[in-house]
Amino acid sequence: MIDFWFDFASTYSYVGAMRIEDAARAAGHEVKWKPFLLGPIFTAQLGIKTSPFNTQPVRGAYMWRDLERLSEKYGFTFKKPEVFPQRSILAARVAIIALDKPWVGDFIRNVFKAQFVFGKDISAAATIADVLNGMFIDPSPLLQQAETEPIKRQLRAFTDEAQALGIFGAPNIVVGKELFFGQDRIDDALAWANKK
Amino acid sequence: MIDFWFDFASTYSYVGAMRIEDAARAAGHEVKWKPFLLGPIFTAQLGIKTSPFNTQPVRGAYMWRDLERLSEKYGFTFKKPEVFPQRSILAARVAIIALDKPWVGDFIRNVFKAQFVFGKDISAAATIADVLNGMFIDPSPLLQQAETEPIKRQLRAFTDEAQALGIFGAPNIVVGKELFFGQDRIDDALAWANKK
Repeated sequence: MIDFWFDFASTYSYVGAMRIEDAARAAGHEVKWKPFLLGPIFTAQLGIKTSPFNTQPVRGAYMWRDLERLSEKYGFTFKKPEVFPQRSILAARVAIIALDKPWVGDFIRNVFKAQFVFGKDISAAATIADVLNGMFIDPSPLLQQAETEPIKRQLRAFTDEAQALGIFGAPNIVVGKELFFGQDRIDDALAWANKK
Repeated sequence: MIDFWFDFASTYSYVGAMRIEDAARAAGHEVKWKPFLLGPIFTAQLGIKTSPFNTQPVRGAYMWRDLERLSEKYGFTFKKPEVFPQRSILAARVAIIALDKPWVGDFIRNVFKAQFVFGKDISAAATIADVLNGMFIDPSPLLQQAETEPIKRQLRAFTDEAQALGIFGAPNIVVGKELFFGQDRIDDALAWANKK
């Protein structure tokens, strides 16, 4: 069992989320999805209210180009969204409800695609509803449940846990107590999991 | 021909420098070493006078652990130096003198090892002299040449060129106009070089 810590607002989390289940399965592992919010972590660690890719434009320019190349490499589509980063709190809460559902992986990938392939605003309930409708899942009860205290609390708990794990960006693959930062470290993380 | 942009003070540059020539050779490419200074770039882009691994301690803690794992993976030794980051200007200047010498790759790797394996202070001329003596090269003329204006100018020119390339950290592999940031992207860079 490996944990995949991600934020729906994160571009490299998109790349990682698209690859992690196939890569883990090929290595004989299952993925536990861990949605969290980078916002409070960036605020606490960097004192910023946006993505470091915005506050560091040189790094940002590299990331957008890199995403084009990575998408080409892995054979999926990528379009820079008009708004970056997007508010990912609603998507993360619905993902938390979905954690014990068989469709959790598809839901997560479809939300990422809504944002990074189709240019949709994932902070809008209508976008999340469209994603769910496209999977033949009734969005209403899920969108209602997403606003309840236990779900909100669980997202805060995951974000606290991410901080306690020493997370400073996304995505991360966590194997036991070992943290692997970045989609480019998936293979290292799986090799580590196989060593044990 | 691929360009390897590195700073002797950078831990991930150590990992990359140890791997790049073998990896490039296996892929049918030659490496052009490009020493530069991260300091002026961090000051310009981040407004800091030290490494971001120091100003962002959570990220720093991850990096030190990651270096241990990477060294284990690639089979080389790593010891956290007492001073980090070290002043790399002298080592970079001597590397510039060495660029057209057959021993440039060995010199670069040996300076990295002096710092990250043997815990030596690479800002000291005595350390650079020891590295050169160990390679049966007389250090005196090189250390003198390192203080001359053409060499100083070339290092400033490389640092300016790094900034113009959109470099914001180290190491980087540059193929044509494509920048690949991080030692974990060596394979991507070589695959890119082979596509052309």
